[in-house]
Amino acid sequence: MSLDLRVDPVQLTEDLVNIESVSGEEQRVADEVEQALRGLDHLDVQRFGNTVVARTDQGRAERVVIAGHLDTDPRNDNLPARRDETRLHGLGACDMKGGVAVALRVAATMPVTNRDVTFLFYECEEVEAERNGLHLLAQSRPELLQADFAILMEPSDGVVEAGCQGTLRVDVTTRGTRAHSARAWTGVNAIHGAGEVLGRLNAYEPRRPVIDGLEYHEGLNAVFVSGGVAGNVLPDACTVSVNYRFAPDRSVEEAFAHVREVFDGFEIELSDAAPAAMPGLSVPAAAAFVEAVGGHANPKFGWTDVARFSALGVPAVNFGPGDPHLAHRQDEFVPIDQVVAVERALRGWLEEAS
Amino acid sequence: MSLDLRVDPVQLTEDLVNIESVSGEEQRVADEVEQALRGLDHLDVQRFGNTVVARTDQGRAERVVIAGHLDTDPRNDNLPARRDETRLHGLGACDMKGGVAVALRVAATMPVTNRDVTFLFYECEEVEAERNGLHLLAQSRPELLQADFAILMEPSDGVVEAGCQGTLRVDVTTRGTRAHSARAWTGVNAIHGAGEVLGRLNAYEPRRPVIDGLEYHEGLNAVFVSGGVAGNVLPDACTVSVNYRFAPDRSVEEAFAHVREVFDGFEIELSDAAPAAMPGLSVPAAAAFVEAVGGHANPKFGWTDVARFSALGVPAVNFGPGDPHLAHRQDEFVPIDQVVAVERALRGWLEEAS
Repeated sequence: MSLDLRVDPVQLTEDLVNIESVSGEEQRVADEVEQALRGLDHLDVQRFGNTVVARTDQGRAERVVIAGHLDTDPRNDNLPARRDETRLHGLGACDMKGGVAVALRVAATMPVTNRDVTFLFYECEEVEAERNGLHLLAQSRPELLQADFAILMEPSDGVVEAGCQGTLRVDVTTRGTRAHSARAWTGVNAIHGAGEVLGRLNAYEPRRPVIDGLEYHEGLNAVFVSGGVAGNVLPDACTVSVNYRFAPDRSVEEAFAHVREVFDGFEIELSDAAPAAMPGLSVPAAAAFVEAVGGHANPKFGWTDVARFSALGVPAVNFGPGDPHLAHRQDEFVPIDQVVAVERALRGWLEEAS
Repeated sequence: MSLDLRVDPVQLTEDLVNIESVSGEEQRVADEVEQALRGLDHLDVQRFGNTVVARTDQGRAERVVIAGHLDTDPRNDNLPARRDETRLHGLGACDMKGGVAVALRVAATMPVTNRDVTFLFYECEEVEAERNGLHLLAQSRPELLQADFAILMEPSDGVVEAGCQGTLRVDVTTRGTRAHSARAWTGVNAIHGAGEVLGRLNAYEPRRPVIDGLEYHEGLNAVFVSGGVAGNVLPDACTVSVNYRFAPDRSVEEAFAHVREVFDGFEIELSDAAPAAMPGLSVPAAAAFVEAVGGHANPKFGWTDVARFSALGVPAVNFGPGDPHLAHRQDEFVPIDQVVAVERALRGWLEEAS
């Protein structure tokens, strides 16, 4: 029995939740999605691994991307889906099969839209970047991601979340000289040296810049600390791992330079970084979208795949049903009325005279 | 071939080094020591596990303990023993078969002494306290450790090291509230909270009290720090393990009270403690010993088994050949002239008119 895209969006969410698709095991759901979309004349469908791309080609002046990932976290004893009066519960209901269901419904039932649409259903969002379907497509076929605007159907409580903050992690290491703790004055304690690193973190005032009318909120936080050799030895090294979440007005390079300045005088090494995404709400297609779905947008603090579009010069927002704080929790659910409302909003935007 | 206690003390040290006796594997060396001592009419010999006790009973007014441990660190590619013009090299040469050789020589060759002597050759000093032969004897037969004074033949460069500092370790833990690092303001970072713990350590001024004419030198040092949950999460706990080395004028209870005061307001847990030992140089037997071996004594900063005697009310000092800083090193050695000098000093003290 193949996936029926013409059922109501909540039923379609339930059907999708009941097709298990833990990261790396998306073949069956991708097969079902591909097969269902290939039955539609108005779409050009292509498959890359377990990522499915479906495009309209109506010759419109604008093209938009509507994207969602097919994978979920590992099984968490919350399958099959369970529905009560107001919510659909189950693995991936919130993150993000509700959003995928809405995108599939729009793809299947709107042969004519005021903007050309590229639908992307991709694999491995919940795991390392190297396996991420959107990342792979950006490497191999970047032209397929080109558009005037992109919507990622990540859970955002049905409100537009624009841009996203960037993230980088550094290791700040202090050095000392080992000594027996009974003769401490013959050594230098590297953990004590890290006191100044924590002092600077405690004194740090995070920026809250306003960009495109949205107030972001940065953060500079120790996420790990480790040091020590033995219970009777002054340690010769201590490392504080610091995570900087930075607003979209800073590039990774600028963010790293800022962190180096904060920890001036200390040994510092960049271990991980991902760029921020500008909200891009001043771009006409984006402004029209926000206007069409209620006129309100919030800043996105966490990092999402919108940054991959931003890196390609495509403004992108998060907009999907479900509370993002419920993602990855065993009790995740999506509110039924949000699934319906998000579909209605998308349809309205793609129907209106442009 | 059994151990010959009548060879010169350097040869005896070499013979002892060549009998492997890693902690827990002292049976052969204990057998050899027991057998050699049982051949001597002036000694009453008893065996407990791999600990050998040999006592004179001449009815003297004073009794002293002369003690040394038979075990060494694990093999370290430095056997068999190797001798050059000035040094004997090899596993245990310094820590502490040189001292054991001297004690065995005195036991074997001085049937008459001016003080009764209890010789103790014990197992498992280099490992956990529960296996330590001296600890076991203090539990099972404390009367065998009773004396007016005790000499531990631990390496001390041939100079009396009196008393020893105590040691205790506490875990100081800070608590916070987890949050995604992209929304840090919704949480409390426990690692940042540890900044104040390190601040107090950095501001700490260790005491240097003078006791029995010896200047001790305390120390309060972080030896481990750990905290962290994930690279994108504010951690909810951070633990700094702190080692306090305290002078012999403080009991464990007083030392712990002091550390609690230093970290007032923080969650603190005692993980480990061993009492200090008073130098006890004002006791007549001790004063006579220091006088006999050159009139000079240094404070002992590190913890040694002298504290076990101190706990039984027996003043005790470290006095043996070898540089204590070479203990546990692959290149450990004992200077030949120190072995000879330490034996001469002990003999002189036990021969003089008392």
